[in-house]
Amino acid sequence: MVLRKEMFDLPEGVLYLDGNSLGPLPKAAGTRVAGMITDEWGQMLIRGWNDAGWMAQPAMIGDKVGRLIGAPEGSVVMGDTLSIKVYQAVAAALKMRPGRKVILSDTGNFPTDLYMVQGLINTLEQGFELKTVAPEDVAAAIDDQVAAVMLTEVDYRTGRMHDMNAVTKFAHDSGAVMIWDLAHSAGAVPVDLAASGCEMAVGCTYKYLNGGPGAPAFIYVRPDLAGAVQPALAGWLGHDAPFDFDPDYRPAGGIERMRVGTPPIIQLAALDAAMDVWEGVDMADVRAASVELQELFIREVEARAPDLTLASPRDAQARGSQVSFRFTEGYAAMQALIARGVIGDFRAPDIMRFGFTPLYLDADDVMAAAAHIETVMRDKLWDDPQYRNRGRVT
Amino acid sequence: MVLRKEMFDLPEGVLYLDGNSLGPLPKAAGTRVAGMITDEWGQMLIRGWNDAGWMAQPAMIGDKVGRLIGAPEGSVVMGDTLSIKVYQAVAAALKMRPGRKVILSDTGNFPTDLYMVQGLINTLEQGFELKTVAPEDVAAAIDDQVAAVMLTEVDYRTGRMHDMNAVTKFAHDSGAVMIWDLAHSAGAVPVDLAASGCEMAVGCTYKYLNGGPGAPAFIYVRPDLAGAVQPALAGWLGHDAPFDFDPDYRPAGGIERMRVGTPPIIQLAALDAAMDVWEGVDMADVRAASVELQELFIREVEARAPDLTLASPRDAQARGSQVSFRFTEGYAAMQALIARGVIGDFRAPDIMRFGFTPLYLDADDVMAAAAHIETVMRDKLWDDPQYRNRGRVT
Repeated sequence: MVLRKEMFDLPEGVLYLDGNSLGPLPKAAGTRVAGMITDEWGQMLIRGWNDAGWMAQPAMIGDKVGRLIGAPEGSVVMGDTLSIKVYQAVAAALKMRPGRKVILSDTGNFPTDLYMVQGLINTLEQGFELKTVAPEDVAAAIDDQVAAVMLTEVDYRTGRMHDMNAVTKFAHDSGAVMIWDLAHSAGAVPVDLAASGCEMAVGCTYKYLNGGPGAPAFIYVRPDLAGAVQPALAGWLGHDAPFDFDPDYRPAGGIERMRVGTPPIIQLAALDAAMDVWEGVDMADVRAASVELQELFIREVEARAPDLTLASPRDAQARGSQVSFRFTEGYAAMQALIARGVIGDFRAPDIMRFGFTPLYLDADDVMAAAAHIETVMRDKLWDDPQYRNRGRVT
Repeated sequence: MVLRKEMFDLPEGVLYLDGNSLGPLPKAAGTRVAGMITDEWGQMLIRGWNDAGWMAQPAMIGDKVGRLIGAPEGSVVMGDTLSIKVYQAVAAALKMRPGRKVILSDTGNFPTDLYMVQGLINTLEQGFELKTVAPEDVAAAIDDQVAAVMLTEVDYRTGRMHDMNAVTKFAHDSGAVMIWDLAHSAGAVPVDLAASGCEMAVGCTYKYLNGGPGAPAFIYVRPDLAGAVQPALAGWLGHDAPFDFDPDYRPAGGIERMRVGTPPIIQLAALDAAMDVWEGVDMADVRAASVELQELFIREVEARAPDLTLASPRDAQARGSQVSFRFTEGYAAMQALIARGVIGDFRAPDIMRFGFTPLYLDADDVMAAAAHIETVMRDKLWDDPQYRNRGRVT
């Protein structure tokens, strides 16, 4: 079994169905960070870079993440934010396909992925174009003008999941570089990057991996390319010999060239503790448990709250680890649920989103959440000015 | 007085002269981070973004940093790493001066600043050129081909300090954009960005500001330009309305457009506690105390260890908050010092670097450090294989 609730600090009276936005606190993370601060930063001071192994952590933790996404050792490195990693991946891809001018994505992609490409295109002034099509039209839209296909495997609103291997093959058949954003995949669904053959992948670690708010992102480059990609963000920690203080940039031989600046050691301590929770966990088991919870949830919610319309694919195999429902007053309804301790989230214009995370959620939790949803909808608890007008940030 | 040793956790038996590389642990940082993890991440979970004010922290802490560098409220924002901020600043500057092809810097700049520009130039493929001249030749090298002058105010090896106002004026006289890197200035020397008139400035917070290893960087944009600069790194948190999830990027109205991805909340908690140590501190007092400590150090070291050659300017006004000495066996000598509890650092090829941080260093510390240096040099303690061959990371 994958359930290990006892490893998390979950607040009393909360049913947390938002681990797809920010994972909860692994108990070990607090202890690990406190120790890092007191014993390493406090006592070792600058020597922590060597003596506590700080400098090696982006690669070391990258390997822990890599194990969950089918990436061989030494092919993943941590750092920065997902937005930055998207920029690095797309910029590198464009250099790999000179002459091709299109970056293809889908309308379900998370906005920052699209924004980063727009920023890159505006910076380049070389006639590049970001083209977005509906998720189901991606394969047909890949042609020999496409330099890179950049997709988030699991749609952040609907949970719809691309067929990674099939889309990658379409991209390659047209000579395009394939970049996967695994924001809603890492720790959520089984991923086999090596088997997919994709050139690059990026993702964040504060969702299903429970690394904490603002935990660093990751980037994967296929091992045969890691020594060849051109880093747009040529930071000193991606240099072949950072402490030579050479005035000229010379990229590291492998994935380390995708490092940029000084890594966030306190965040990495929390993330490292969070990754230890995954020790011995098989993603196939996580997937099986997640699907079971999702199917139960859909069945219960559809039976109890007929005003909610399923926005996610009904076929479990085409869905990531979340279930979304549409409801015109979804924002207020979600606020009413949160007030009752059922935490999901809302995504404009009308999506109520619930994440399923079998490390700390079980069938009893799902049944309890469904009962609250029934009450909120049946009694129209959402029809209350306090819920309609709350300042919305996330 | 600025001395507030009691606010720091300094290890027993250590004389820490490396706060210019990584500041020590402010006592409040450990408590603050522990509280943030337990009470905010643990209990609020996703609601922390609103209820604990996480989303506002990059701007809120930016203002605290801004106070120390002469930046008006709302002109500084935190995030990413210094390398990333350099990229943002230079990319924005190039858009402000179309047609000009030169980025001018000096050979004393920290390598990552130069690398990031090299990476940007290679990405752009528009014939841009990074030109570096000796620090004292910068003013004369500014001509009407220079789009941006990018300099680190205080040289990381020698401590030599540029005249910020004078160089900025030279840049502006030739129509160039001026970008200052304040890595060794913020919290070290008085800076008045507003008075200088420079367009942009960047810096890190893990040195003199004591924000912890990997603490986020900052960027300043002159208020009249903050709503006009074009963000190359167009991340969702720099969007005018991130939670509209608009597919098109539309930059925020002011400095917030220089935000990119999800901010590192755990690092920010530590940094916020570190910034509180500066409350009521006047940078003029810090400077006066720092100069006094440096002058004492130079006098004592030159008297006690004649084999060390001053690498920093002798004129205190032309020097930042560090003192460097050259010594052929500087690496081994620094290792011998560290073994005795005197922590400075080494920068290739032969620089022994000592930082002066009057918040937690006093004249007694300086005298004690000088005595150890005397012993190491007089007894040739550096001439020991254990010190010569140690793996060097920082």
